[in-house]
Amino acid sequence: MIFSTMYVTGREVDALGDTMVVGRAALLDVLGTVGLDAFLDRLIGRMQHEITHLDPEVTHTRDRDGFHYTKPDLGLIEWMPAIDTGRRVSIKTVAYHPSNPFQRGVPSVLGTIAIYDCTTGALDGLVEGTVLTALRTGAATAVVSDVLAPRRPLTVSMVGCGAQAVTQLHALSRVRPIERVLAYDVAEEVAATIADRVGRVVSAPVELVPSDEHARLLADADVACTCTSVGIGEGPVLQPGPHKPDLHINAVGADFAGKTEIPYELLADALVVPDVTTQCVLEGECQQLEADQIGPSMDLLLRSGAEHPGRHQLSVFDSTGWALEDMVAAELVLDLAAEHGLGQWVDLQSVGVDPFDPYEGAV
Amino acid sequence: MIFSTMYVTGREVDALGDTMVVGRAALLDVLGTVGLDAFLDRLIGRMQHEITHLDPEVTHTRDRDGFHYTKPDLGLIEWMPAIDTGRRVSIKTVAYHPSNPFQRGVPSVLGTIAIYDCTTGALDGLVEGTVLTALRTGAATAVVSDVLAPRRPLTVSMVGCGAQAVTQLHALSRVRPIERVLAYDVAEEVAATIADRVGRVVSAPVELVPSDEHARLLADADVACTCTSVGIGEGPVLQPGPHKPDLHINAVGADFAGKTEIPYELLADALVVPDVTTQCVLEGECQQLEADQIGPSMDLLLRSGAEHPGRHQLSVFDSTGWALEDMVAAELVLDLAAEHGLGQWVDLQSVGVDPFDPYEGAV
Repeated sequence: MIFSTMYVTGREVDALGDTMVVGRAALLDVLGTVGLDAFLDRLIGRMQHEITHLDPEVTHTRDRDGFHYTKPDLGLIEWMPAIDTGRRVSIKTVAYHPSNPFQRGVPSVLGTIAIYDCTTGALDGLVEGTVLTALRTGAATAVVSDVLAPRRPLTVSMVGCGAQAVTQLHALSRVRPIERVLAYDVAEEVAATIADRVGRVVSAPVELVPSDEHARLLADADVACTCTSVGIGEGPVLQPGPHKPDLHINAVGADFAGKTEIPYELLADALVVPDVTTQCVLEGECQQLEADQIGPSMDLLLRSGAEHPGRHQLSVFDSTGWALEDMVAAELVLDLAAEHGLGQWVDLQSVGVDPFDPYEGAV
Repeated sequence: MIFSTMYVTGREVDALGDTMVVGRAALLDVLGTVGLDAFLDRLIGRMQHEITHLDPEVTHTRDRDGFHYTKPDLGLIEWMPAIDTGRRVSIKTVAYHPSNPFQRGVPSVLGTIAIYDCTTGALDGLVEGTVLTALRTGAATAVVSDVLAPRRPLTVSMVGCGAQAVTQLHALSRVRPIERVLAYDVAEEVAATIADRVGRVVSAPVELVPSDEHARLLADADVACTCTSVGIGEGPVLQPGPHKPDLHINAVGADFAGKTEIPYELLADALVVPDVTTQCVLEGECQQLEADQIGPSMDLLLRSGAEHPGRHQLSVFDSTGWALEDMVAAELVLDLAAEHGLGQWVDLQSVGVDPFDPYEGAV
């Protein structure tokens, strides 16, 4: 993995400098300074490049693991480690608590991404992971859709109109023109605001589809995205039915054993591309499939080039979230924060003069 | 697990307040404010209590996992998760790079401990983990030695005179009087300063043992501690030989597959108490043993009470580091930082008004 810019200089001189913290406010400053479109273009470009040129001898990720619980509410806290050997380790910790928005006014997904230096083990950077998760999940959809989505102005169906819907549509719009958006959410108050939230980054009109016309979400779409908080065992969120022959679906919501969004009938007919196969069979749409029904993983798809025949058939991107995506996204944010003097240096691991005296400085 | 004090108040009102960061300087402020002895007493007391009353239905830890590598130098970065169900998750990330002190003037162990709230998933606190690792490893030694070490003023042998040696001796001194210290390190410049570093917290005289009298480290000791950076396959760091019948050894250094400090001959005769059995068979002294040679784990030992018969025989504490110890230590630091107004609030995950708008606030 080659990154074009280094975000920390002088590491040889001060191996344990402060930790660069880019919280939500600073991340929004970065986005505002660079521009939302330009940021997503750079993120999509880097992700495309890093995944296409992935050397598995150098860059590994571990499957997501974590604590899943039902007390005090249904939720999970997970860790997603990645290593770029000889350079750095990233660990994203991500929490999913679907009752957050409704009970607490807080996003359902919260997280942070930590970047460690492999020479010393120091924590170099810590980046807010809520907005960044939405952005990198959007970018992953864009990277795969750029290969598998029809090459025409798109009608995009959004099932689930929360935070992820905004970045899904925004990222898609950077690789294909979007002509119109059909939107649906079981929570009417969430659906009611999607046009405003999306309107800022995507110019296509957003039409809310009523429940009794739900079949249009499949029938009229060139691309569909599902990004819902559907409960375990309560899926799917799309119904089988007529669809365009080259429909591409980005299934983004599944992230919990038993949670699925896409009906088996569609999956069985589709080229299904998991982001991380071992993870998708546990938490993604691939839970519903046998091994021989699962297509190439995202990295293999990208390596096979932009003319993959999957573009001409029904396809599903089973996006459960890949630690590599987080590493790439956090690196980009740290690079840009350094470039524009944003973020906050925090004295977390500074050391004394004597590495053998743990009490040095205690008075 | 019951903690007597809560370190965050008003969580119901502001579910996503800032994150409390206690870096090294702030941790030293905490230690200085509370006093080194008082801090260790509280840490030892809490750890003893929490482990003794551990309810495995409520509190779980995951075995340490991580990336181990040889580029650019031998090192590892690992994660150690723990959950106190319904309350919080802690994840320590810890790095071990044995060339740090000699090549970079940086401790070999670096780390951070993150505490997450299980209701929202928010990162509540982040504590420096280098000094704290030395402290909690010392406290774990004290907790086990309080059961297994002879009840008399101790001659303590230290093999390895780095940062851990200071906290090993300090913590031991809180549960037993120390009469004298015998110290040895292959690096003479490290051995040369241990008396000064230890003298601040332990009043016993420190005698450096020359290489050709190495056998005294075993023969004269009531308690021995090994905390070295011995290379993989280069152990043991003690040689088999005559020793007191009720010698207790705290084997602290092993933390890497192939790294061991204690000779098999001693282990085979001893009651061996692992901190985390599944981890010790991979990274600790238990690598050298068959299952039936391994004694009760630390929590079982503590639950069996202070009059365990192991006190009257040769015993070894195989201390590889337990995520629960980190959770307890980080909680204590956050409690004390709150109590004394220390540490730094960092805006990491603050949210906007609309949990469904990832771009809210980007200008």
